[in-house]
Parts: sequence; structure tokens; C-alpha cells
Amino acid sequence: MKKILILNGPNLNLLGMREPGIYGTDTLASINEGLSKLAEELGVSVTFAQSNHEGGLIDILHETDADGVVLNAGAYTHTSVAIRDAISAIRKPVVEVHLSNIHARETFRHTSYLAPVCVGQISGFGKESYALALRALAGML
Amino acid sequence: MKKILILNGPNLNLLGMREPGIYGTDTLASINEGLSKLAEELGVSVTFAQSNHEGGLIDILHETDADGVVLNAGAYTHTSVAIRDAISAIRKPVVEVHLSNIHARETFRHTSYLAPVCVGQISGFGKESYALALRALAGML
Amino acid sequence: MKKILILNGPNLNLLGMREPGIYGTDTLASINEGLSKLAEELGVSVTFAQSNHEGGLIDILHETDADGVVLNAGAYTHTSVAIRDAISAIRKPVVEVHLSNIHARETFRHTSYLAPVCVGQISGFGKESYALALRALAGML
Amino acid sequence: MKKILILNGPNLNLLGMREPGIYGTDTLASINEGLSKLAEELGVSVTFAQSNHEGGLIDILHETDADGVVLNAGAYTHTSVAIRDAISAIRKPVVEVHLSNIHARETFRHTSYLAPVCVGQISGFGKESYALALRALAGML
Amino acid sequence: MKKILILNGPNLNLLGMREPGIYGTDTLASINEGLSKLAEELGVSVTFAQSNHEGGLIDILHETDADGVVLNAGAYTHTSVAIRDAISAIRKPVVEVHLSNIHARETFRHTSYLAPVCVGQISGFGKESYALALRALAGML
Amino acid sequence: MKKILILNGPNLNLLGMREPGIYGTDTLASINEGLSKLAEELGVSVTFAQSNHEGGLIDILHETDADGVVLNAGAYTHTSVAIRDAISAIRKPVVEVHLSNIHARETFRHTSYLAPVCVGQISGFGKESYALALRALAGML
Amino acid sequence: MKKILILNGPNLNLLGMREPGIYGTDTLASINEGLSKLAEELGVSVTFAQSNHEGGLIDILHETDADGVVLNAGAYTHTSVAIRDAISAIRKPVVEVHLSNIHARETFRHTSYLAPVCVGQISGFGKESYALALRALAGML
Amino acid sequence: MKKILILNGPNLNLLGMREPGIYGTDTLASINEGLSKLAEELGVSVTFAQSNHEGGLIDILHETDADGVVLNAGAYTHTSVAIRDAISAIRKPVVEVHLSNIHARETFRHTSYLAPVCVGQISGFGKESYALALRALAGML
Amino acid sequence: MKKILILNGPNLNLLGMREPGIYGTDTLASINEGLSKLAEELGVSVTFAQSNHEGGLIDILHETDADGVVLNAGAYTHTSVAIRDAISAIRKPVVEVHLSNIHARETFRHTSYLAPVCVGQISGFGKESYALALRALAGML
Amino acid sequence: MKKILILNGPNLNLLGMREPGIYGTDTLASINEGLSKLAEELGVSVTFAQSNHEGGLIDILHETDADGVVLNAGAYTHTSVAIRDAISAIRKPVVEVHLSNIHARETFRHTSYLAPVCVGQISGFGKESYALALRALAGML
Amino acid sequence: MKKILILNGPNLNLLGMREPGIYGTDTLASINEGLSKLAEELGVSVTFAQSNHEGGLIDILHETDADGVVLNAGAYTHTSVAIRDAISAIRKPVVEVHLSNIHARETFRHTSYLAPVCVGQISGFGKESYALALRALAGML
Amino acid sequence: MKKILILNGPNLNLLGMREPGIYGTDTLASINEGLSKLAEELGVSVTFAQSNHEGGLIDILHETDADGVVLNAGAYTHTSVAIRDAISAIRKPVVEVHLSNIHARETFRHTSYLAPVCVGQISGFGKESYALALRALAGML
Repeated sequence: MKKILILNGPNLNLLGMREPGIYGTDTLASINEGLSKLAEELGVSVTFAQSNHEGGLIDILHETDADGVVLNAGAYTHTSVAIRDAISAIRKPVVEVHLSNIHARETFRHTSYLAPVCVGQISGFGKESYALALRALAGML
Repeated sequence: MKKILILNGPNLNLLGMREPGIYGTDTLASINEGLSKLAEELGVSVTFAQSNHEGGLIDILHETDADGVVLNAGAYTHTSVAIRDAISAIRKPVVEVHLSNIHARETFRHTSYLAPVCVGQISGFGKESYALALRALAGML
Repeated sequence: MKKILILNGPNLNLLGMREPGIYGTDTLASINEGLSKLAEELGVSVTFAQSNHEGGLIDILHETDADGVVLNAGAYTHTSVAIRDAISAIRKPVVEVHLSNIHARETFRHTSYLAPVCVGQISGFGKESYALALRALAGML
Repeated sequence: MKKILILNGPNLNLLGMREPGIYGTDTLASINEGLSKLAEELGVSVTFAQSNHEGGLIDILHETDADGVVLNAGAYTHTSVAIRDAISAIRKPVVEVHLSNIHARETFRHTSYLAPVCVGQISGFGKESYALALRALAGML
Repeated sequence: MKKILILNGPNLNLLGMREPGIYGTDTLASINEGLSKLAEELGVSVTFAQSNHEGGLIDILHETDADGVVLNAGAYTHTSVAIRDAISAIRKPVVEVHLSNIHARETFRHTSYLAPVCVGQISGFGKESYALALRALAGML
Repeated sequence: MKKILILNGPNLNLLGMREPGIYGTDTLASINEGLSKLAEELGVSVTFAQSNHEGGLIDILHETDADGVVLNAGAYTHTSVAIRDAISAIRKPVVEVHLSNIHARETFRHTSYLAPVCVGQISGFGKESYALALRALAGML
Repeated sequence: MKKILILNGPNLNLLGMREPGIYGTDTLASINEGLSKLAEELGVSVTFAQSNHEGGLIDILHETDADGVVLNAGAYTHTSVAIRDAISAIRKPVVEVHLSNIHARETFRHTSYLAPVCVGQISGFGKESYALALRALAGML
Repeated sequence: MKKILILNGPNLNLLGMREPGIYGTDTLASINEGLSKLAEELGVSVTFAQSNHEGGLIDILHETDADGVVLNAGAYTHTSVAIRDAISAIRKPVVEVHLSNIHARETFRHTSYLAPVCVGQISGFGKESYALALRALAGML
Repeated sequence: MKKILILNGPNLNLLGMREPGIYGTDTLASINEGLSKLAEELGVSVTFAQSNHEGGLIDILHETDADGVVLNAGAYTHTSVAIRDAISAIRKPVVEVHLSNIHARETFRHTSYLAPVCVGQISGFGKESYALALRALAGML
Repeated sequence: MKKILILNGPNLNLLGMREPGIYGTDTLASINEGLSKLAEELGVSVTFAQSNHEGGLIDILHETDADGVVLNAGAYTHTSVAIRDAISAIRKPVVEVHLSNIHARETFRHTSYLAPVCVGQISGFGKESYALALRALAGML
Repeated sequence: MKKILILNGPNLNLLGMREPGIYGTDTLASINEGLSKLAEELGVSVTFAQSNHEGGLIDILHETDADGVVLNAGAYTHTSVAIRDAISAIRKPVVEVHLSNIHARETFRHTSYLAPVCVGQISGFGKESYALALRALAGML
Repeated sequence: MKKILILNGPNLNLLGMREPGIYGTDTLASINEGLSKLAEELGVSVTFAQSNHEGGLIDILHETDADGVVLNAGAYTHTSVAIRDAISAIRKPVVEVHLSNIHARETFRHTSYLAPVCVGQISGFGKESYALALRALAGML
């Protein structure tokens, strides 16, 4: 059975509390619960991790034994060359997801250091973004 | 039953023949066939259209009676304000899709005039990009 | 009697339906009706055309026998070198109009490829923009 | 009876003498005379003011009891945030006019700090630009 | 007893009337009254000046016999090299203040020609910005 | 016998009438006649097409059975990613030509989306540009 | 009694030792001592935290039970979208402070990702910057 | 006898007092005295004017009966399109001078709105810059 | 009989040895031999020169008695204003050629200081670029 | 005996496993072993540290008792103002090293926030980069 | 007696022949003759040199025994860091001159690598530019 | 025995005399002497060359029979595409060195046209930069 890591970056631990107008009212726990169910359906296993630390996300990427990663790197998407290098280094398929439509927000959110080294990018579908990414990654593995 | 339009832009009629290293070997017809099956599963109806003309895509968007659109505007994604305005004008949910990971290609493919007025963007999963978009849109309607 | 062509570009066929907050509630037909009346007053004749196609607008500009043109090129204003060249090529006075104040909208709407080869530019007065342009052009011919 | 202020900025006192190839041979006095007649026709009253001082234009905008303003801010159009703020502050409709087609001249004349806070912009019709603006403003009041 | 000049630039004479959503409802007179009281507390004397003219602000800076200046140069903050040079020329401590958070507004308000030659910058606290600046300057003298 | 398509873009149907100071006085028909003769000399066959539509040019590129293309895409050279993609898609040698020296004109004519996917670029020799391109392409096939 | 967190970012633990020409000779401990006294005067309570880790600062912002924050994010001011998002997420008033006049230093220190989501910004007054910020925040709560 | 106006802009009234490290210790009065003597030698008459107001400089340029102008517009050199337009409008030879080497200072002092419409530019020779300009202009008239 | 100079710039003496993947395997000598033959056919005489020195190329351009020049300035194309000025100065038709398609290489090779003052530009046809240029120039003389 | 710290940043713990095409097949352990030997030769002592955390690297720089540092900050080289400030703060010679030639990779790797505050930069020699840096630093101490 | 070198750069040997509309009809020889006379008047000796080679100009600057240099580096003004370094290296006063008003020509002529390390810049007075520079330099020595 | 060329560019012949604050007090001769000794130690032979001419450096690179090159191209590092092409053309390992830390100087010295085609870059260690480069190159050959 293939293992998939659902990895969330800075401030996503506050989901449901933080700016619900932009990010919706679901908590990260409830999103993860939904993903666990979907994983079962898809015949894959999922594990979850979150960190507000750029270096923490890199450590997790280095150490995971998952076969692929669904990654919402939050704000680090737009500023972190180090996470980009970690993705290249681990040579596993990573799918970039965003809850909000990053292209409809501030200009500095339109560029992603991570996208060029990920398999693909899914943004704008709220918590559904994760489900689509999980499905895509499961299909690929 | 909700109707969804799968709309393809310039050069996508050549899919399967055109640069298979980048776009894969499936033809547009075979992709559409797959989407028809998925639509059935999801309980929505799908129609298909393709045009190499910027104005043709606008005409189709104006005239469609679909409830939502999965749009791969191809190269017009990066140059067409007019299609952007058409999407705003019709007030229907539109999901932007790309076969290839546009963020891993030439710089001029990194920006999208359409993304800010679409619901979301899915890129990089080959023909699977369409399936994910259809699923997202069906869920939303 | 001098002839003036009122030429409208992409999405303007949807006027009255499309984003009334920005473009007002008058349809293109009712605007044109008003312009017909004004033309009579001013002692000129008017004809009307609209196309969503960049090439279509060029074809119309090439083929018109009008003595001058009131042109709302919509989104092509900001992206079309080809329409600019058509205006230079036909050597007839062309007045650029916009319903909304394009300078108060997105940055990419602040530049016009057409303005430097037009007689002048009128923007921001809603349907009155056309009337002012017609009056300016009639006075000039 | 509605009052409209025709306000001219730097160097426009030299009209008719200054670079007639660009600005025409009419003096400001003769232009204003023509506008007085048109105002009568339109059933509005007009007053006139001119200053070469950025601060002078701001003072006039603050102190005017007019119901709307036709403003040719000349070169300050391209450099003055302070006049922009004055326009926002007085909350009266202001129409920006230019004698020449500013979009066909040097690049630094293509941008306007004022346009986004004005009702609209009219440029390129020589002294006729003022008449069109007066008409537009009279219709609006 | 040290003397401090409270110097206000363009459009600040309209405070309380002008865009209260951004600038608050206090008039300049009432703000100055509050500062007079605070000055007394702090053991310094204050004088007040305002001008809508860039050159007027320069003249005042040249002629003041104050020991330091609290300066809200308004829109000239973003466009005036001449006021910058005046600040350098007089060799007195100048504190730059802004009522609104200029970093949260239009891009052209994010840069200040004055800040590099001022002691410091305080922005975003409404009329309290002046009080903080007065306090800072009084402490410094 | 190898077949070569001579394909012309927007406004080139007006050649000889349009801005003869820049483009010369030969019509497209007379240029094509000359190319037919040269083709005979070179032992290749030529066909001709012209369209003012970006999508029209793409359709023609998709459908041609020629072995190579001499393409003057006119203004679309500087704005069309879609034609670029069509050239990549058809995998035939395309030579880009221009009548005028595009590097000696407005800045926006200095960049070409097409050049990187064409065999080469020839500009500035008037109608002779086509003859040189035909010769180059014939030699190559 | 309102609680205020004084939060310091990278390298500020070295204050007094680090580049005293720029940052002065007071240590962070002595600055904090001064702020404790001022807090007492102002009738608020203060707590203190410092971290060299971007993620550490985010964690502290998430977990604090303070009613407002005085934040000197040091170098992260100029590079961290993640801290910006944390400030937006916690919905508490945050005041940005800097010891030095960041506008008089290298260009990359002139922009702040944090300022637009903070209440205001105070820079250039040495350790007095903190006192002014504390005063401003206390007044606001 | 030809008349030459020596016109000085903002902050130059402070010469000798202001930043002597950059501008030297001569006052404007002593510089003007030296120029009077040189003028006598050269057989031309000179008049002098100075203003800190952009509009004031424009007024003086409009009203002067001099045959040519030596202009040190100070900081307005880098920001004033209005003075540029005044120079174009009066159609008299104007020579731009600067005391300091503006090219060796801040980047924003490297560009001049005035230079393109002046006869020439002399910078970096301290008060000698004026003498050289007077000599150049006298020779030209 | 008209004389044409074939002038080659830096590193082109290494042709055939240098990066054959980009520049082909022909030596400069063998290319020149081919051009001599073509010149005979075309009824013109050719001379040849090459220099690795920017100043050397300028000297040759100044001293040549040829009626026109085929110039491959190599890397100096992208950096030399001095060669541009030499071309303007000698007032003879110059045709710019490149072996490789410079538009398909690094960005800094996409701009040419020389093109705007040359008759035209031919790039991308390998050694055939020279033959096409010679033919174009011979036809022109 | 002088102490030198060899400090490695993000992803360098994966050396030998990560993209060997770019970074070679040596592990960090084996590189460090080699450096220990060289240190002995050079008569200095070396210690080693690595962290994937930006803040972790800052903490280590603050706390080290080494006399100098050889620093490969990896991806943080291009994004971290905070590490730059840490280097300035500790006032010890730091030598920047890179395994790969960062100037031959993506544009965003061409700039270094750290280089201006380091003694020097060595890049492109694989593990030999460290040895050269150690030698340079040892010579300097 | 002080020695001054009059040093001319690329294409200036063609003066009088080259583009007289821009550079006038005097030859370099006749200009130098005039400067010899002026030097005598001023009590300094002059020598002359010219080179089309960037390296040649550097060699001359290194080897000259003059006490100061009047330098018209022509096109190298805008492209040569090496000549800038030579000027810094020889530590003699150098005055930059230009015949034409470089600020009124193409944008790439508006910037000078040399000006920041020269004493001053004189441009736009034709051959008189040299005389003014000689006078300025003689006065300084 | 492997041969290494030590090649120096413009102004480096003045080493020891030129700006010793930046470049140190050693002459090029004494540096070369030191390198000769080091070469002996390393078992390689060295030859030396210097030129102030861009073309001269290219000639030397073409003609050298060395197996590798230590190149300090001085100012040409930042402006010469032609030397870059020469390095690519000769297909020998070249190491770029700089005496000063070019990243701590003017912005235009931060970019190197040469670095991407060199093996690596060493800057900031004074004359030691050459020794490190020689060692690196000797190890590589």
C-alpha cells in the first residue's frame, strides 16, 4: 500500500480560525479526517504533518518514508528556495496545493518557487484542493 | 442535471500529435471520451468545444448554456484580456486547466490573465488535469 | 453626408448584461439607437459593427467606407498591435472610447496600443463616451 | 444653475504662443470665450482659473464653490500626488482634459496620477477637448 | 525652552472634512490644540504651520527658528526631492509623520524621499502619530 | 517537388496601399507573383495564404501540406504565443520574415515570440526579404 | 489590565554587542527593563519574547494571550510573508518597530511585508522606538 | 547688448550655509557678484532670480525678457515636467548647470527632465559651473 | 564593379573548431571561399576581414573602400555602441548576419545595438546567412 | 591554535544522495573528514555544524567560539537577510562557499545576500570549495 | 607649466565627416588647433590623442604624464567599466565632454559609467564643450 | 607537466599603484613571482599575460597552449560577452578570480558574464585569490 504525506506549512494550524473569509471555516483536523476517508477509498495510506518552521518542513521532507507528498507550503511557497531544494533532493512526487486562488490575491503570491519542481499545482478549491491532490497523487503512484 | 462545458483553446486539436514529450500521446477525442465516462459517474452532462480563435472561444463562452466551464485556453491563457473579460461577463464558475506544469516552462507561461477570474487552477497532471477539474466543478454545482 | 462607423470589440455585445456595476445597464442596441439620433442632429450618417474577433475588427476596419471611426476595442485595446497597425493602415481618423475609466482599473488596462495612432481618447463617461466621440469626430470631418 | 470651474495648470497661460505645432494657435482667452458660449447653451455657469503652481491649483480646488471641475493640469498630471489628493478630498466630479494626445508623446506623459480619481479623461481634440468635457460634466450634474 | 515646529503639507488643512474613512474626523485645529497641551506637559513650546505649496513648505523650513520639526508632508513625501534637500540643508532634527498607514495604501505611497534624511518615521496612528513624534522629538532635544 | 507555403498575417493584404513609406509600394499580389517565378527557378512549388486572424493563421499552419513555411506574421509576431505553439506543433521548418527593419521601429516590435521556434529570421529588405527566405528554405529542404 | 507582548526577532538578542554604531549600546535586557517601568506608568502589563527563528516568531504570535504586540521582526520584516500571514491570522493590533531608520539603509530594508497588516510603523528612534510603540498600543487598547 | 538671466531653484538661497561639503562655502550673492564681473568682460548684461517654488520658476521663465537663461533648477531638475514644458514654451536657449557632480550622487539625481530641452548641461565644477555656462551662452547669443 | 566587405568579429576566426553544435563545422576560410564564388556569380567583388578587437572592427569600417558591408559582429552585436556609431558614421549599407538563431539563445543575445542602424538582419541559417546577406547587398548596390 | 567552524545550511545533510549530477557523490561526513585532515596540516582546529533552519544557523553563528567560519548557507544564501545580519553582528571573518557554480544555474541563485558581508566567495569547485576556503581562512587568521 | 591631455575616443577621428547634423562640420584637427590657442591663453600646455580602441584609451590614460585630462570617450562613455577603472586608477582630474546633448538622444546614451569618477561633465555645446572643459581644468590645476 | 596561464585584464598592470585601499599594495610582478613558487610546489608550470584590450585578452585565450587558465578579467568581467564566447570556444577549464569582493562594491560589479562558462569563481581574498585558483586548477588537471 502506497503512503502519502499531507504536509502543511505556516499558519495552517489555525485553519478555521484564521481569516475564514479567505480560508473557510473547516479546521485542519476536520480536513485531515476527510482526507483519511478518501485515502481509504483510494487504497492508499496517509500521514499528516504541519510546521510553522521553514526548516521544520525541510526536516519532515527529508525524513518521511512516504511515496509522495501533498504539500501546502503556505507563505513559504513564495519565498523559500530551501524547500524547493528539499523537494528536488528527495526525488518523490510532490503536489502543490492552495486553499485560496493565489492568483487572485497580492502580486507576491502569484509566484511559486516550488511549482517548477512539483508535479503540478492545484489552487482555489478550498479544502477540496487537498482531495483533488490526493486523488491525483494516488492515481500516479 | 447540471451541464458542464469542456472548452479547449489553440493547438489543442493537435493533442497526441503535437510535442508528445510535453503534452502526452492522448488525442483530444480520447480525453473527451474519458471525461464523458467520468461525467456519467458524477451525474453531470458534458459538452465539448475547441477553437484556435481567441474570438471563437469568447463566442462559445457567451453562447453556452452550461452551468460551468472547464477551460484549457492554451497559449491565450498568457495573452488574452478579452477571454478574461468574457469569463467575468458570463458569471459562471470556470476552472482553468493545463496539461503541462506551466510553472516549469518559459517565463511567459508563468502568468495567467485568466486565473484571477477563475475559481481555481489545476496544472501539470496531463489529461488527469481535466478529470480533476471536472470533479471539482461537479462538486461545486 | 459624412459616414461614421461605430465599431465595438469583444464582450461589448453583452452590454447591459455584463458586470453592470462597471459597464452600466444599457444594451449595445439602446446605445446605438441613441447614437443614431445624435448623428441625425449632427448631420452625419452612422453604421454599426461589433466583433469578438481581433481579426474580425481588422477586417471591418479594412473594408469600411466610413470617413471616420468611433472605436471601443475593449480588451484588445491593451493587447493588439495588429489593430493598431490596421488603424495606421487605413488612414482615417479613429477616436478611441471606453465606457469605464480604464485608468481606475487593473494596471494592464492603463496602457493602450491604440491611443498613439488614434486622434484622441475618451474614457469614463459610460454610454456618454460614445456620444462625445461621435460629436468630436463629426466636428472634425 | 450649476457652476462649473474650468481650471488650467502650468504653461497653459501661454497657449497660442507655446509650441503651436502641438497645442494649436488659440489663446486660453479665446478658448474660454468659446466655453462661456457653450455653457450658456447648456444652461450652466462657468468660471475660469489658471495657475502655474501645484499648490495654487490645490488652493483653488479647495476654495471653489463650483459643482464640478474641468481640469487640464498640464505637466502636473504626470507628477502630482498632491493634486490627486485634493481631487479626492473635495468630492466633486472632476473631468481630466488634454489638448494633445498625451499617449502619442513621451512615455512619461502616458501615465496620469489624476485619472484614477477623476470621472473620466478626454485627450487629443485640441480646444474641442474642453468643450466635450464641459458637455459631459453639464450632463452629469 | 526648546521650540518645535509642527508643519503640515498639502490637503491637511481639510482634515476632518477630507476622506474621514482614511484620515479620521478631527480637524487640524483640534489636533494642534491637543499638541499644544502635550507640549506644555513636555516642557517645550510648539508653533504650527501648513501649506499646500511645495515651495511654501521649503520657505517655512528655511525660516523657522525652531529646534526641531514634526513634518507631515502629505503627498509631497512621495514626490519632493526639493523638500528632502531643504531638510538636509537646515540641519535640524525632523520627524516624518503620517496619519494613515502609508504602507497599506497605493504603491506610490510606500516610498518616501524624506525618510532617509529624517530622524525617523511614524505612520498609521491617526492624530496620535503627531503626539508620538512630538514626544520623540522633545526627548531628543 | 518540395512545397513551400508563403503565409502572411494581419494587414499585409493592404501592402502597397498601407504606409508605403515603411512598407513600399508593391502589392501582396505582385510580391507573390515574383516569388512564384523564383520558386520555379529554385525547383520548388509555392502556395500562398493570408489572414488577419490569429486563429486563422493557426488553422492554416495546422492544415497545410507544405514542407516548409515562409511566415510574415506581422503584428502577431510580437504578441502571439498561440502561433508560436502552432509552429512548434507542426514540426516543419518555418522562416520568419519582415519587410521593414523591425529593430529600427517601436520597442514593442523588437521582440518576437516566434523567432525562437523558427529556423531563422530575415528582416529589413522589403519584398526581397521573402525572396531571401524562400531561397534559404528551398536550400534547406 | 491589558497585556502587551514585546516580541523581538533575529539577532536582537545581541543588542548592545552588535554594530553599536547602528543599533546603540543598550542591551535587550536593559531596554526591556525600561519598558517594564513605562508599562507600569501606562497601566498595562508587558511580557517579553525573542527568537531567531521565523517559525519561532510565528509560534509565539499564535500562542500569545496578549491583547496587542510590539514587534521588531528585524531582518524578517523584509523577507517573511509567513509572519505577515500570522499577524493577519491572530487579529490583534501589532505595531512594527525598528531601532534604526530602515529607510536610510540598504534598499532591501526599505520594504516591509509586515507594515500593511500592522497598525502602524515606527522607525529610527533607537530604543525610544519601543517606548513610543508601547505608548501607542496602550492608548489604543 | 544681450541679456542673460541667471535663475536658481530650491534651496540655492542657502548656498554657503547648506552642506558645504557638497556645495562649497560661497553664498549665492558672492557667486552672482562674480558672474556680474564676468558678464561685463563678455559684453552681456545679467539679471538674477531665485525661487523655492516650482511654479515660481515657471512664472519667471514666462516673464523674463532675457535672451537666454542659465538655470540651476536644483532638485526640480529631477522631478519637474512643468519646468521642462516652460523651457520648451519660451523658445530661448537655456543652459542647465549644477554645482555638484549629480552623476556621483543618489540615483534619482542622475536623470534630468530638463536636459533634453536645454542646449547643454554642465555639472560638477562648483560655482565655476555658472561661469562656464555664462560663457557658453554669451558665445552662442 | 561594386565592392563588398565581409567583416567578421570576435571568435569567428575559430569557426569550425568552436562549439560546432551551435556554429557548424565549416571554417571561416571555407565560408569565405564559398562567398567568393557567389560574388563572382553576382558580379560583385568581395574582400574579407576579421578582428577580435572592437576598436579593430571600427578601424576597418572607417578605412574600407567597399560600397557595402556584410557584418557578423559576433558578441559585440549585443554590447557595442561604438560599432553602432561607426556604422552610422560611414554611411554605407551594412547587413547584420548571424550564424545561429540568436533569438533562441540567452536573453542577452536577443538585443542588438547594431540592427537599428543596419539595413536588415539575417540570423539562423548557418553559413547560408552570409550568402543570403551578400545576395541582398549585391541586389541593393 | 585557531578554531574554524565549518557550517552547512539546508539540504546539505543529504550530500551524496541529493542530485549527484549537480552536487557530486561525496557525503557531508566524508567531506568533513577530509577537512579535518587538511586542518591538521594547516595547524588549525575545525568543528562542524549543519542545520536546515535559518534560525538554527543564526543561533550557531551567535554561539560559536570559533575565530572564523566557512559557511555554505545553501539556498538561504539567496533569501536570508537575517543570516546576513548575524554575520555582521558576530564580527568574525566568514568565507562563503558553494559546491556548484551558482552563476551557471537559475537566475535567483546568482544573487547572494551574504557575499557583501563575507570576506570572499568561492563557488564551483565541488568539495574542493571547502578546502580552498579553509586554506584561505587559516591563512588569514 | 601644467600639462593637459585632450583625449578622444571612438569615431571622433571622423569628426566633420560623420553625421554633421549631430556633430557639426569641424574636423578634430581644427578643434585641436583651436584648443592649442586657448591653452596658450590660459598658460597651460596641451597634447592630443585619439583611439578607437577601449584598451587603447586605457593605455593612453595609464601612460600620460599630463596633470589632467579632457576626455570625450564617445560611445565607450555608456559601456566601459574598464575606462572608469582607469580614471580611478590614475588619480588625476578628468573632465567628461560631449559634443552633442547626450540627454536628448537615445536612452542608452543618458547613462555614463565615467561621470561618477570624473570631476564634472559638459555636454551639448559642440566643439565649445572642449573649450569650456579646458578652461575648467586649467582653472582647477 | 601541465601548463597554466595566469591572465590579467584591464588596469591590473597598475596593481600596487592603483587604489591600494581596494586592491592592496602588491604589484602584479610580485604576485606573479609568488605564483611561480606555488606552481613549482604544485608541480605545474605557469606563464603570465596581461592586456588592457578586450580583443587582446581574446587573442591570448585563442593562442595559448596552456591546459587551463586563471583569469582576472577585471572590468571586462561585467561587460564582455566576447570574452565569454572565447572561454566557451577554447574548451579549457578557466577559473575566474577577483582581488576584491566584487559583491561588496557597485551593483554593476555584481554580475559576471564570464562566471557561467568558467569552472568556478573566487573573489575577495586579495592576491591570495590567485593562489587559491592556481591550487584549484592544478588539482583539477
